[in-house]
Amino acid sequence: MEGQRKGSFNVMEGSEANGKRWCGSVVRTCDLVLRLLAFLLTLVAAVVIGADKQTAVVPIKLVESMPPLYVPVAAKWHYLSAFVYFVGANAMACTYATLSLLLSLGKRRKWMETVITVLDTLMVALLFSSNGAAIAVGLLGLQGNSHVHWNKVCNMFGKFCDQVAASLFISLLGSITFLLLLLLPQLFRLKQTT
Amino acid sequence: MEGQRKGSFNVMEGSEANGKRWCGSVVRTCDLVLRLLAFLLTLVAAVVIGADKQTAVVPIKLVESMPPLYVPVAAKWHYLSAFVYFVGANAMACTYATLSLLLSLGKRRKWMETVITVLDTLMVALLFSSNGAAIAVGLLGLQGNSHVHWNKVCNMFGKFCDQVAASLFISLLGSITFLLLLLLPQLFRLKQTT
Repeated sequence: MEGQRKGSFNVMEGSEANGKRWCGSVVRTCDLVLRLLAFLLTLVAAVVIGADKQTAVVPIKLVESMPPLYVPVAAKWHYLSAFVYFVGANAMACTYATLSLLLSLGKRRKWMETVITVLDTLMVALLFSSNGAAIAVGLLGLQGNSHVHWNKVCNMFGKFCDQVAASLFISLLGSITFLLLLLLPQLFRLKQTT
Repeated sequence: MEGQRKGSFNVMEGSEANGKRWCGSVVRTCDLVLRLLAFLLTLVAAVVIGADKQTAVVPIKLVESMPPLYVPVAAKWHYLSAFVYFVGANAMACTYATLSLLLSLGKRRKWMETVITVLDTLMVALLFSSNGAAIAVGLLGLQGNSHVHWNKVCNMFGKFCDQVAASLFISLLGSITFLLLLLLPQLFRLKQTT
C-alpha cells in the first residue's frame, strides 16, 4: 500500500517536472525569437526614419500684396527633437537587443536573468516614451492645430510623412515585442497556476 | 556528531527562512507604499493639468498695413490631443493604482500577483508613452520650431505652460513609481543571489 502510494507520487512528480521543463524550454525559445524580432524591428525603424529626407518647392509670401516666391525647402528627421529622441531610443534598444540576445544564447545564470529583466523593463519605458513623443509630433504634422496656429506640413511633404508613419508603426511593433518579453514569463506562470 | 551537523543545518535553514521572510515583508511594504504614491502622483498630475486654463490678450494682424487687433484668446488642455491622451492615461493609472492597492491589502494569491504584475507592466507602457507625447508637445509650445514654422506659445501663456510643466514633472514621478513597482522584486532577487 505504502509502496503503491510512493509510486503514484513519483509518477505525478515526474510528469510535473517534465511539464515545468517543457514550459521552461518554450519560454526560452520564445524569448530568443522575441529578442531577434526586437533587434530587427528597432533597427529597421531607426534606419527608415534616419534615411528619411524630402525636398519640396514651397510658396512663401514675403509681402502680402506681391505674388509668392517658390523656394525649395528640405524636410529632415533631425529638425524635430522628438524624432531625434525616437532615433536615439530605437538605436539604443537595437544595441541592447543584440547584446541580450548574445547573452541569452549562452548559459544564463540567475543574476544575469535578473539584470536582463531590469534592462528589458527600462527599454519598454524608453521605447514607449519615444514612440509617444514621435507620434504626437507626427500627428501635429499631419493634422496641424488651429488653436496654436501650427499648420500641417504633411500636405507638402507627403513622402517624408509616409516614411515617418512607417517607421513609427515598425517601432511600435518593436516596443510591443519588448513588452511581450516582460509579459511572457508572467503569462506562463499564470497558465501554471490555473 | 550526526546530531550536531543536523542542528547546524537547522540553524542555517532557519536563518535563511527568516531572511527570506524579512525580504518578503520589506518588498510587500515597499509595494504598498509605492502603490499609494503612484495613486497620489497620477491623481495630482491629472488634476493639475485638468484645471489648467488661461486667457491672454493676443495681437492678431488681419491686414499687413493695419495695426493689430487685440483679441482675448483662451488656452485649454483639451485643445491638444497629446494632453487629452496624457490626462486619460493618468486617470486610468490612478484608478488602477487604487484598485491594485485595495487588492494588495488583502491576501494575495499567486495568480492575482501575476495579473497585477502584468497590469503594472501595461501601466508603465501607457504612462511613459503619454509622458513622451505631452513632453514633446510641451517643448514645441515652449521653444517652437522654425523649420516647420510652428511658433512658441508659452511666451503668451506663461501661467498655463508652468502648470503643464508641473503636471508633466509629477506624472513623470508617477511613471517612475510604477517602474519601481516592476523593478523592486527583481532588485531584491538580485540582492539574494549575490
